[in-house]
Amino acid sequence: MPHPPLATCTLPTGTPQLQALFAPRSVALVGATERTGSVGRALLENLIAFTGELYPINAKHNQVLGYRTWPSLSAVGLPIDLAVIATPAATIPEIIRECAACGVQAAIIISAGFKETGPSGVALEQRVLEESRLSGVRLIGPNCLGLMAPHLGLNATFATAMALPGRVAFLSQSGALCTAILDWSFRQRVGFSAFVSVGSMLDVDWGDLIRHFGDDPHTASIVIYMESVGDAAAFMEAARSVAAKKPIIAIKVGRTAAAARAAASHTGAMTGSDDVLDAAFERAGVLRVDTIEQLFDMAEVLAKQPLPTGPRLAIVTNAGGPGALATDALVLHGGELAEFTTATLQQLDSQLPTHWSHGNPADVLGDADATRYATTLRAIADDPQTHGILAVLTPQAMTEPLAIAESVIALAKTTNKPLLASWMGGDAVEAAREALNAGGIPTYDYPDEAARSWQFMWQRQERLRWLEETNRLAFTERPSMNEARAMIARHRATGRTLLTEIQAKQVLAAAGIPVLETRHAKSVEESIAIAQEIGFPVVLKLQSPTVTHKTDIGGVQLDLQDADAVRTAYQQIKKAVPPADFDGVAVQRMIQEKGLELICGCTHDAQFGPVLLFGAGGVMVEVLEDRVLLLPPLSPMLALDRIRQTRIHRALLGNRHLKPADMRALADVLVKLGDLVLACPEIQELDINPLLATASGVIALDARIVCGKTSES
Amino acid sequence: MPHPPLATCTLPTGTPQLQALFAPRSVALVGATERTGSVGRALLENLIAFTGELYPINAKHNQVLGYRTWPSLSAVGLPIDLAVIATPAATIPEIIRECAACGVQAAIIISAGFKETGPSGVALEQRVLEESRLSGVRLIGPNCLGLMAPHLGLNATFATAMALPGRVAFLSQSGALCTAILDWSFRQRVGFSAFVSVGSMLDVDWGDLIRHFGDDPHTASIVIYMESVGDAAAFMEAARSVAAKKPIIAIKVGRTAAAARAAASHTGAMTGSDDVLDAAFERAGVLRVDTIEQLFDMAEVLAKQPLPTGPRLAIVTNAGGPGALATDALVLHGGELAEFTTATLQQLDSQLPTHWSHGNPADVLGDADATRYATTLRAIADDPQTHGILAVLTPQAMTEPLAIAESVIALAKTTNKPLLASWMGGDAVEAAREALNAGGIPTYDYPDEAARSWQFMWQRQERLRWLEETNRLAFTERPSMNEARAMIARHRATGRTLLTEIQAKQVLAAAGIPVLETRHAKSVEESIAIAQEIGFPVVLKLQSPTVTHKTDIGGVQLDLQDADAVRTAYQQIKKAVPPADFDGVAVQRMIQEKGLELICGCTHDAQFGPVLLFGAGGVMVEVLEDRVLLLPPLSPMLALDRIRQTRIHRALLGNRHLKPADMRALADVLVKLGDLVLACPEIQELDINPLLATASGVIALDARIVCGKTSES
Repeated sequence: MPHPPLATCTLPTGTPQLQALFAPRSVALVGATERTGSVGRALLENLIAFTGELYPINAKHNQVLGYRTWPSLSAVGLPIDLAVIATPAATIPEIIRECAACGVQAAIIISAGFKETGPSGVALEQRVLEESRLSGVRLIGPNCLGLMAPHLGLNATFATAMALPGRVAFLSQSGALCTAILDWSFRQRVGFSAFVSVGSMLDVDWGDLIRHFGDDPHTASIVIYMESVGDAAAFMEAARSVAAKKPIIAIKVGRTAAAARAAASHTGAMTGSDDVLDAAFERAGVLRVDTIEQLFDMAEVLAKQPLPTGPRLAIVTNAGGPGALATDALVLHGGELAEFTTATLQQLDSQLPTHWSHGNPADVLGDADATRYATTLRAIADDPQTHGILAVLTPQAMTEPLAIAESVIALAKTTNKPLLASWMGGDAVEAAREALNAGGIPTYDYPDEAARSWQFMWQRQERLRWLEETNRLAFTERPSMNEARAMIARHRATGRTLLTEIQAKQVLAAAGIPVLETRHAKSVEESIAIAQEIGFPVVLKLQSPTVTHKTDIGGVQLDLQDADAVRTAYQQIKKAVPPADFDGVAVQRMIQEKGLELICGCTHDAQFGPVLLFGAGGVMVEVLEDRVLLLPPLSPMLALDRIRQTRIHRALLGNRHLKPADMRALADVLVKLGDLVLACPEIQELDINPLLATASGVIALDARIVCGKTSES
Repeated sequence: MPHPPLATCTLPTGTPQLQALFAPRSVALVGATERTGSVGRALLENLIAFTGELYPINAKHNQVLGYRTWPSLSAVGLPIDLAVIATPAATIPEIIRECAACGVQAAIIISAGFKETGPSGVALEQRVLEESRLSGVRLIGPNCLGLMAPHLGLNATFATAMALPGRVAFLSQSGALCTAILDWSFRQRVGFSAFVSVGSMLDVDWGDLIRHFGDDPHTASIVIYMESVGDAAAFMEAARSVAAKKPIIAIKVGRTAAAARAAASHTGAMTGSDDVLDAAFERAGVLRVDTIEQLFDMAEVLAKQPLPTGPRLAIVTNAGGPGALATDALVLHGGELAEFTTATLQQLDSQLPTHWSHGNPADVLGDADATRYATTLRAIADDPQTHGILAVLTPQAMTEPLAIAESVIALAKTTNKPLLASWMGGDAVEAAREALNAGGIPTYDYPDEAARSWQFMWQRQERLRWLEETNRLAFTERPSMNEARAMIARHRATGRTLLTEIQAKQVLAAAGIPVLETRHAKSVEESIAIAQEIGFPVVLKLQSPTVTHKTDIGGVQLDLQDADAVRTAYQQIKKAVPPADFDGVAVQRMIQEKGLELICGCTHDAQFGPVLLFGAGGVMVEVLEDRVLLLPPLSPMLALDRIRQTRIHRALLGNRHLKPADMRALADVLVKLGDLVLACPEIQELDINPLLATASGVIALDARIVCGKTSES
């Protein structure tokens, strides 16, 4: 049976319910009130500006703040697209039912008092969800600030002001952060296509929102503050489909276990393993940044500038120091300096003063005028080895900040390479900075920040490439792994969850992964016979239904040179465990070829399902912390790109101790491992440690497979 | 002979010449001119505001810009403290001679045209230096912007404005950066006790400047932009003496090799190895930051707030998300969250709403008012497990940003724990931010930046502790290492530079470092006899005057169990090299105890002298990149603090494969290694790899020593 293709290709484009949330024609406010300082009043004051129909609902009064009210939703008697609800939590299940009865498409539940209050709140929340599921009324919240759609004049929040219109859809799981960002956005003149406080995400979740704003013509980029991922599959599907056309930029708190606790205590939501999330973001094309500042900066940069086609940045500066600062930041974040071609160098030599830096960063010296910057920028923009340019300026005696800015803006019109700028200083460069920003050139106070942004731009480009490969894989039939599946089924039928090393290797071999042949011997004589057959020296390893960490108790005997050594080793291993735990030994050839010990494995993440691990192996694996996580299915390209992110990768390329390893064979193991765990979801844990990588190939020396107790497939 | 005590205790406090530079009573400007756009005119315009005597020197005109001029320095006929020189490079040797003749104490050479122009410039520079050395006239520059002493109204630069007065001495090796920082400082209202463009540092260097500003009563902190370290010994001595009383905060470009090239091409100066510089900064108590922003931020923070007495930070916030952002940043930069005591938790439970976060970060919820913040801050400030507090605020519906800011300011008056703040947002929090800043509480736009600053504060405190230990070591007599010195001398007398493994181990043993006994055998029979004496299994290793990497060519045979195995191994090793390269084998016991393979070594840095290395060892050492550098002499405390910075440190603490290693013995090896290389400067390179660390001690399994060809002592 082929693995079912991933569902990216069959996404619905928007739903009427989400249209009702973000572009309603009519809004009802349930809980409209005059009470000073109340949420209901703040909402009403904000909603008054809405250009569609507004129906304030209040059971006791005929009007609030001079506006006519209706006693209930059903009393309105006219179509209502969206209900905004600010009544006490206990009333809400009934209100959602009423929404359904009145044909309301969607509701925003502002009210708190649900799961964050304990078990009774959880139960109440479940009732709300049931009403929603029964009727199809979609919900934002509960426990949120609400949402704004500035292009429509819709402010369905209790914040103190309306966001500016713009092209960024901002989605935040922290209402408090929304208020801070909103306040900040006025000063920074940042505008939004939507400003959404998602609250507890009881119903409408990341997947819904990402898909909606992926199709929203007002939205150029989607910016997310995330505390928990919620429905991981929905998130991944939506992100993978949208990220290819619009940048999705996210900050996810809980990188550290301590922060995850801080977030969890706040939202009551579980925060998943951060490393897995990183792998998932990479896979889904989501750009993950570290700070709030970068979140909005990258939205701006990606909206203004083209993406680089390669990783290498050129720096043009009128001072060496700032050039060195930019270079430090670039390289520390994994970036690369461009190396100019000979032609470019010759051209620059011919047009620049003798003492220019003769390389990248191109220091065009303190007396550089706009013409010198312009000709240098032009020459470098034409250099095929340069993928983008950072122009740096310090205001020196002869410097013309504005004229030089204009030369950068002019260049932008005639090149498709991305341009960034850092005009350092204060008032002397202010007009130039404004011109650059207005001209679509992202401008930074310090060149190190610009270099950091360059790295994010390149990351975005790289992820697009991975995304393309990932989406291609979605249409590729994966191997059926019938034989391995059958083996797993047979083992599970015996009721055992931990496979023996021999069994585990048989499964791997069936999946096409090279293993070191290992045979089971239940007596000294059998061991010696096998050893003689496969050739000395050999290794003997304890076989036991119970003991997993064999090395620790002396259950592994290496480099046995002859029959006598095998005999002694067998007896030693037998003595090391109680008779009930002894099921003979595994006999295998002693590998003498030099190579690198790697680890490949698989675990199940509660949110993202099977996750592969690759890294430096051996007994020091926990200490080395040199590993990457990968989500299957993989292609050789995706596998190799991630292998390159490990330190051991450099050793795999060869050094004075070792020939270069067979990278193709290594990538193939990861691809097949991914196919195996996708085809056999019963595999809960899988470890190949060590996987020996040599010039002639890779081979699994030891392996361990744990299966789930009950069938999942 | 005892190692001479380090010279920290005998520093002179200031010199009249440096006083003449930064607090002159009279200044001559050589090269005063009216020419529009000239440096000489810009200098004159700036110097006019100087309150002391000013003597413009111009050979051709009686006055410039309406001011009387003198035809030469000698024509002035009155005392001149400082000469500011802006005449062409070729004239300068003669002017310095004239300075000396007229009793001028010091000069600032603004002019460029020296080493950056090539060999003739280098020669010219040398002539200037000779004049200076002969006469004692101290020099700043050449090729610099000049300097400002705002408290005196002295602006001896050609910048366009005078810096604001303040408590920061800013020293920059980039004149262009000076102009940008100056422009920026007006907007940020940052003031300076001195603003110095150091130029090429021909004479007055980091050491002179640090010592001067260490004694300067106007200066609270010294802030450095560094491209090259210059005279490393002078820098280290000055920094070690000053950093204990005033913060020295530095940004040093060239963290990466590419950036070092960028800096070198600009200044013509060599940039040293960055890792060594990091170790030197740590040793000298210099706080190294990554960005220009942090440079001035840390100067402000360290001036305003007390240092923490421990690493653990508490976070108080009215929103979970920003608390999680701060926690992420804290932990990623190596910081620690405080854990509240039971008493504190009980107190907070009694005074906060039920749903507060019940831990750190303390989320006091969105409706928190100033009273709630105040009582929470008070309780946490009194918690003995908390060493400092970060207060975070987002402007929500009920929030009183200013009143809450005042409660933080009030707390600061009654606690000696450091306080930081992050009031997020824009106009809604602006007044509160200003109040916080005015009240001495450093305030950040984003909580992650505040957490980063906390880590720098703790780093400053840690470095002070190291500095105290380092300065204590300066008075401690180091072991004489007479026996090891004598051995080295004997080996060098034979003309050989590479010691054999056996010789290297003898030197280490003489230094008190445990080594695995290794004996030399020149025949099969001798090998077998030694093996029988020390007990099987044994290891045989090639002894060769030429081959250094024995493993690569099969020169090491492990785990030899009996006489036959020894015989075979001996023959194999002998065959592996040409007869001339074979000098028998080394025989040693095969270590079977489990332990961790470490590396300890020493190299000579061109600037900082002997540098020790510690890290994860074995053949993968280059790939693992898990190492720290240390400058000798060391104490066990200094050694252990650095060992803790490696990843392998966690394995040394024990895991399921290994018992905890003997850390005291390990620290002792590093201390003795430091003493050895200080006592024997003839040792150019030393490698112990592996050093095996086990529960019962440490032992050098292999060792390599290379000596210099000629005596350095």
